[in-house]
Amino acid sequence: MNTIQLIGIIAGTCTSISLLPQLIKTINDKNGGDISYLMLAILLIGLGLWIWYGVLKEDYPIIITNSISFTLNMLIIFFNFYYRK
Amino acid sequence: MNTIQLIGIIAGTCTSISLLPQLIKTINDKNGGDISYLMLAILLIGLGLWIWYGVLKEDYPIIITNSISFTLNMLIIFFNFYYRK
Repeated sequence: MNTIQLIGIIAGTCTSISLLPQLIKTINDKNGGDISYLMLAILLIGLGLWIWYGVLKEDYPIIITNSISFTLNMLIIFFNFYYRK
Repeated sequence: MNTIQLIGIIAGTCTSISLLPQLIKTINDKNGGDISYLMLAILLIGLGLWIWYGVLKEDYPIIITNSISFTLNMLIIFFNFYYRK
């Protein structure tokens, strides 16, 4: 792994981590709060397109870290539906 | 602009847009709610590193869209401090 890839991995780890509090809050509260499904959907589409972009450019930091973000966002959506009132 | 760049721009637009509700909520409520400064800081570092990564790879969709996200996140942090109780 070269320095540029390392920067990408750290960058992506930071932006992925920022999704964790929402996931933890959703599970702990057993409720998604006032989170917007539209925004979760837009974010999911964006992350999906980033993965596609990474695949087209063979850019592994983008593929790996956005796949993690995509998975976390899917879990947020899943638990929001699961705990839906 | 080629197709790959267009995908990157759309991807980045979607992930940037997902920050808007937090900014609007902060300004409307004149309060950041229970948002974590630590997470905002981690996200800011992540977005900054993505910009750096984009510069090193001369990847314009990454530079442009992460700069927008970085600015939105800076505004969220600014208004959180501004309306701090």
